[in-house]
Amino acid sequence: MRLLAPDDAADVVQVAPEDRRQELLELLDEPTRHEVVALLAYAEDDAGGLMNPRFARLRPDMTVDEALSYLRRQARDRLETLYYVYVLDAAQRLLGVVSFRELFAAPSQQLVGDVMRKEVVSVLEDLDQEAVARVIARHDLKAVPVVDAEGRMRGIVTVDDIVDVVNEEATEDIQKLGGMAALETPYWQTGFFPMIRKRAGWLTVLFVGEMLTTSAMARYEDDIARAVVLALFVPLIISSGGNSGSQASTLIVRAMALGEIRVRDALRVLRRELASGLALGSILAVIGLARILLGEALFQSYGEHAMLVGVTVALSLLGVVTWGTLSGSLLPFVLRAARLDPASASAPLVATMVDVFGLVIYFSLAGAILSGTLL
Amino acid sequence: MRLLAPDDAADVVQVAPEDRRQELLELLDEPTRHEVVALLAYAEDDAGGLMNPRFARLRPDMTVDEALSYLRRQARDRLETLYYVYVLDAAQRLLGVVSFRELFAAPSQQLVGDVMRKEVVSVLEDLDQEAVARVIARHDLKAVPVVDAEGRMRGIVTVDDIVDVVNEEATEDIQKLGGMAALETPYWQTGFFPMIRKRAGWLTVLFVGEMLTTSAMARYEDDIARAVVLALFVPLIISSGGNSGSQASTLIVRAMALGEIRVRDALRVLRRELASGLALGSILAVIGLARILLGEALFQSYGEHAMLVGVTVALSLLGVVTWGTLSGSLLPFVLRAARLDPASASAPLVATMVDVFGLVIYFSLAGAILSGTLL
Repeated sequence: MRLLAPDDAADVVQVAPEDRRQELLELLDEPTRHEVVALLAYAEDDAGGLMNPRFARLRPDMTVDEALSYLRRQARDRLETLYYVYVLDAAQRLLGVVSFRELFAAPSQQLVGDVMRKEVVSVLEDLDQEAVARVIARHDLKAVPVVDAEGRMRGIVTVDDIVDVVNEEATEDIQKLGGMAALETPYWQTGFFPMIRKRAGWLTVLFVGEMLTTSAMARYEDDIARAVVLALFVPLIISSGGNSGSQASTLIVRAMALGEIRVRDALRVLRRELASGLALGSILAVIGLARILLGEALFQSYGEHAMLVGVTVALSLLGVVTWGTLSGSLLPFVLRAARLDPASASAPLVATMVDVFGLVIYFSLAGAILSGTLL
Repeated sequence: MRLLAPDDAADVVQVAPEDRRQELLELLDEPTRHEVVALLAYAEDDAGGLMNPRFARLRPDMTVDEALSYLRRQARDRLETLYYVYVLDAAQRLLGVVSFRELFAAPSQQLVGDVMRKEVVSVLEDLDQEAVARVIARHDLKAVPVVDAEGRMRGIVTVDDIVDVVNEEATEDIQKLGGMAALETPYWQTGFFPMIRKRAGWLTVLFVGEMLTTSAMARYEDDIARAVVLALFVPLIISSGGNSGSQASTLIVRAMALGEIRVRDALRVLRRELASGLALGSILAVIGLARILLGEALFQSYGEHAMLVGVTVALSLLGVVTWGTLSGSLLPFVLRAARLDPASASAPLVATMVDVFGLVIYFSLAGAILSGTLL
């Protein structure tokens, strides 16, 4: 406990059971305990919760030589890292930054205020950790200073903490996109029953949603009874809608997480995905039609109206894939607008939403095209 | 170009068109050009391709004071970062490491050999970037030294390069898990036709695979003609198998990427997932049975044999969800064993594999349970 940096010690206290926390805090020396208690006030997943309150600080009117020997004393007691050195005024407001390497290489008698860069990228203490990770990545930083609402510097978030954040956030998104709640612990450290709970929740929701397909099918029961051949293509058609929807939602959710797509891009995305859906749907429609005509030519599989059945299936594929692509790309925007996690637009959820509509498209087209012949 | 570190300059040259590369290289000064050309020999995504050949180096017999002024000269010309200082022998073999902060804080007259740590985590120059990221994360390092087969140090990979690697690898995995080829460029930078190609490839493969459901359904065409009620539950049953398979494959693929699960854990994983599948399948079976009995009690939806139909659907759900969970967790191991990317075990691929088998389970159970009544 005593060897840990304050931000890591705070993490240990945070995951300990309520009744052991005081005991852990008492292992720390007085100044460190103060730092750790201050950190515990922050949410675990914002900049304040990630930051290390120990950073290298200087005044602008020191010379480089004075600065180096002053830092040497700071390094002895309380610094964990020495990427950047921050230059603060008397009120702890951030004036500038200089990389330690630049300071170390600068002429001895130059003033710190003349070596430092004055444009400093900083983050507010309540910024979400995912956004902190994006700031660090965008500006290619080794560490970013954390300031409070008054502009006083409170700590630094270093890039090595960000690797964990990036991995954690990606794991959460991947698990959600797979159609389950995020585990939040590694696979083997997750107990059997907690894991079943995380999976059963969404599985049940999807199952109940999918029950609508039974009602939709029931509406067309008479059509199926008259033309059983229609039933054969049901799995093929609905799964194609689900697959194209899965591609679209995955693509958009990830691009949103990386900051490549924002809510205001919704219209541009939908236009592009409409075109994608039509293109992809056309490809599957052609393959589907070819397959049915070939099956009929070789094995007389689909009866005298094979051509009409083929056209019905092909047009349904075009409709279902376009619809799947559109709804898969729209859903993440709807979730984000409702302040929910876009990653909940999982492949299974999109597939479930698309299935019912896919059946309606298919049987409506069948009704229109086959009435008077098969129906 | 002249302001870039050699590893970044090499990246720029690597993405430039073949005929512009020489021109770019000529912008560099002689020693840097040598470094960049050496880096270009490495694959872009292994340790050698990521590393920076400029690192801080010392001899073990220097004093701390000598070391600091020697480093100050190195910092002036050619260092990009100063996390760790590496102690090398005359043959450039790695003897030890000391963090710059520790060196800076050590007594002036101590020898570097006495301050350094002798257990150094290093990686070989041809290690894949994903594995480098795992080494850095596991040991919580700011940088890792890269050595060649003879143990000579060639460069360092720093943690800020790893953030990009982690993000890139997660994006690739997410896109593959969504059932498409990895885009490799951001959403808006990917042209319309290249994107359609990346999506249409897998969509077509899945479509052709899914055509097997049409053949499977055709085998049971007479059963469906006799008991149309059976067709109503087809989408519900196959999608439940697909959803549970999607959960399992996503979970295992991500745990493999994070190094939590290895190939030798396959048996343990399958045992655990078999239990999960049975538990999840039982939950859906109970809900499904309840729904059918309720529908019958309220609306007489399913005819006089509703109880038998309910039992058929419930047992099929149990079988399909167990099968989906098992195949979803097995597929990533099979892909890894075949030296393919486990992330290709996408939700849509697992669903497609499960659909055909789901139909066989369902109609076989129907044949056994309903023969003599509905069939």
